[in-house]
Amino acid sequence: MDPTAPDIHLGHTVVLRKLRQFQDLGHKAVLIIGDYTARIGDPTGQNTTRPMLSPEQIKNNAETYFQQAGKILDMSPDKVEVRFNSEWLADLKLADIIKLTASMTVARMLERDTFEIRYKKGDPIGIHEFLYPLMQGYDSVAIQSDVELGGTDQTFNNLVGRDLQRIAGQSAQIVITMPILVGLDGVQKMSKSKGNYIGVTDSPADMFGKTMSIPDNLMENYFTLLTDVPADKIKELTDPGKTHPKQAKVMLGKMIVEQFYDKQAAEEAATGFEKVFAQNQLPDDMPEVTIGAEPVMASKLLLHCKLVDSGGEGKRMIQQGGVKVNEAKVADPSELITPANGMIVQVGKRKFAKLVIG
Amino acid sequence: MDPTAPDIHLGHTVVLRKLRQFQDLGHKAVLIIGDYTARIGDPTGQNTTRPMLSPEQIKNNAETYFQQAGKILDMSPDKVEVRFNSEWLADLKLADIIKLTASMTVARMLERDTFEIRYKKGDPIGIHEFLYPLMQGYDSVAIQSDVELGGTDQTFNNLVGRDLQRIAGQSAQIVITMPILVGLDGVQKMSKSKGNYIGVTDSPADMFGKTMSIPDNLMENYFTLLTDVPADKIKELTDPGKTHPKQAKVMLGKMIVEQFYDKQAAEEAATGFEKVFAQNQLPDDMPEVTIGAEPVMASKLLLHCKLVDSGGEGKRMIQQGGVKVNEAKVADPSELITPANGMIVQVGKRKFAKLVIG
Repeated sequence: MDPTAPDIHLGHTVVLRKLRQFQDLGHKAVLIIGDYTARIGDPTGQNTTRPMLSPEQIKNNAETYFQQAGKILDMSPDKVEVRFNSEWLADLKLADIIKLTASMTVARMLERDTFEIRYKKGDPIGIHEFLYPLMQGYDSVAIQSDVELGGTDQTFNNLVGRDLQRIAGQSAQIVITMPILVGLDGVQKMSKSKGNYIGVTDSPADMFGKTMSIPDNLMENYFTLLTDVPADKIKELTDPGKTHPKQAKVMLGKMIVEQFYDKQAAEEAATGFEKVFAQNQLPDDMPEVTIGAEPVMASKLLLHCKLVDSGGEGKRMIQQGGVKVNEAKVADPSELITPANGMIVQVGKRKFAKLVIG
Repeated sequence: MDPTAPDIHLGHTVVLRKLRQFQDLGHKAVLIIGDYTARIGDPTGQNTTRPMLSPEQIKNNAETYFQQAGKILDMSPDKVEVRFNSEWLADLKLADIIKLTASMTVARMLERDTFEIRYKKGDPIGIHEFLYPLMQGYDSVAIQSDVELGGTDQTFNNLVGRDLQRIAGQSAQIVITMPILVGLDGVQKMSKSKGNYIGVTDSPADMFGKTMSIPDNLMENYFTLLTDVPADKIKELTDPGKTHPKQAKVMLGKMIVEQFYDKQAAEEAATGFEKVFAQNQLPDDMPEVTIGAEPVMASKLLLHCKLVDSGGEGKRMIQQGGVKVNEAKVADPSELITPANGMIVQVGKRKFAKLVIG
């Protein structure tokens, strides 16, 4: 667990779900919190994904993570063990590190795809970056792991763990890598920074709505990695000749919501979605926004209602014809609108606000 | 000072002589004993120049080194300070090492000639090898050096010291590099392992004799790096139109001997050499070897007199015509020779033994 990014999205749950299966089969999961590297941060300051955290921040983030991971994992004490890697990394001496680093060659490290690309492009690679895979590999030695789980992007690091265990006289761990979950855009890896994610703390409506927005060809990837549906059933569900894609996607959305909430929340999310999008009705509950009675520019109104993140986005949405006031399209971003009690402002298909004069 | 190789030859004295000049001008020399890395050795076991030494061995080797370095340096306590690098390296934590390694990129390290050649050839480079220049550079930070001296082959390491000092907020040391002394073969760097060296503990006769064996074109290098002769005078001495090479070489040989012994020893070495080689006379003092009176095979006789290291070498020397008994060539290694009191056995031009029956 990387304490600099404690929020879990469905991409993370792919590995956590596999880990849960191990727990259910009687194994103990060991969660390692990478507090040592988080305390150091990136000494060059160039790698923004490695900020330096205080012990307090690390503690808070770890708590957030466990709370969220608990939606997937069995967190009962006999099923999970939590370790901080500072426990073994803080005590390493230069002599130990020389031994660790001697176990790996520069050429083998540079074969790793991320390094190879940067090296060939002439982008600087700090020598400390060669230490991180070794430190991560050393975690396996420290906890004497039998199996390490990770995404396919962790294959290199996990194999380093095998090497270091062998050198330490331990039997080498089994490495299981899970496929990467594609994000909502259907192209890139699901990631918070790319905004193409479903967070495990998202509301049922958001989870369901976001799932409904994925391209049809992603459904197989999602059914496989995020549900317990058997492979032959998935084939049926993703064959448009046998199942209508919309029907399959509704099923997928409900299954995802149910994992993090319950059956009822899943049904309600599906019904709510149906109302708004399929039947083009207004949703039952809309956020109310208080506003003055004087006329306001359309783009500013959207910003005030927090339906867009910037004035620029508001203009764009209006110009693309995606904005309605009381179900009538707004054509010009600079159009003046006079707010009224109960007036409904809508951006795209799923964002609404109801105005309250005050 | 590398405690795995405590014996000093003239190649080392080039830098030590420059350091002595600094001492004479009022500076304090700091000698750093690389005990920390010697205690670790090369973890891969592949680098035979980095054996692992015990604390006892390190202590003994350091003593040997100081004894020999004392022939060049002023070892009075106000002129020299001795530090062991374990003093600062042993306490480094992983966090410190991450900071150290972050100061240098992989590309810059691979630009270093020795690494570049090996990397391009596909020879393995352990990642720990990237740590050594940083450790050596960190020595400069630890002692807050103003000037670091080294051979030109140390330029990279010494410049790393500058970088690390800057990062530590110190003013960067001045780096002075001395040219490399060429060995007696006139081609390769002087080195013990290549056998092309003059050791500072060699006898006056050996020092002088070895100096006389260097190619004429090496004299400028030797005069410049090993004596205080001014540059314009060296030009005269190495111009065959102005000075006969033999005369210049005798001068060089005497100057070298005088540095490690005294004027008288230098004169005696020159006279002894003259007697044996130039006038083909026998030397004044020859080791006496006690032997039985019964006949012995020529190759075995050489071995008994310790004039060769093996029976094989003895045979070879005889076959090459390099062996004389009482000034008569011996042609056949299996020839039986009957020892007599005062009989002279000679191998090559400079090795003699006088037999004593007993």
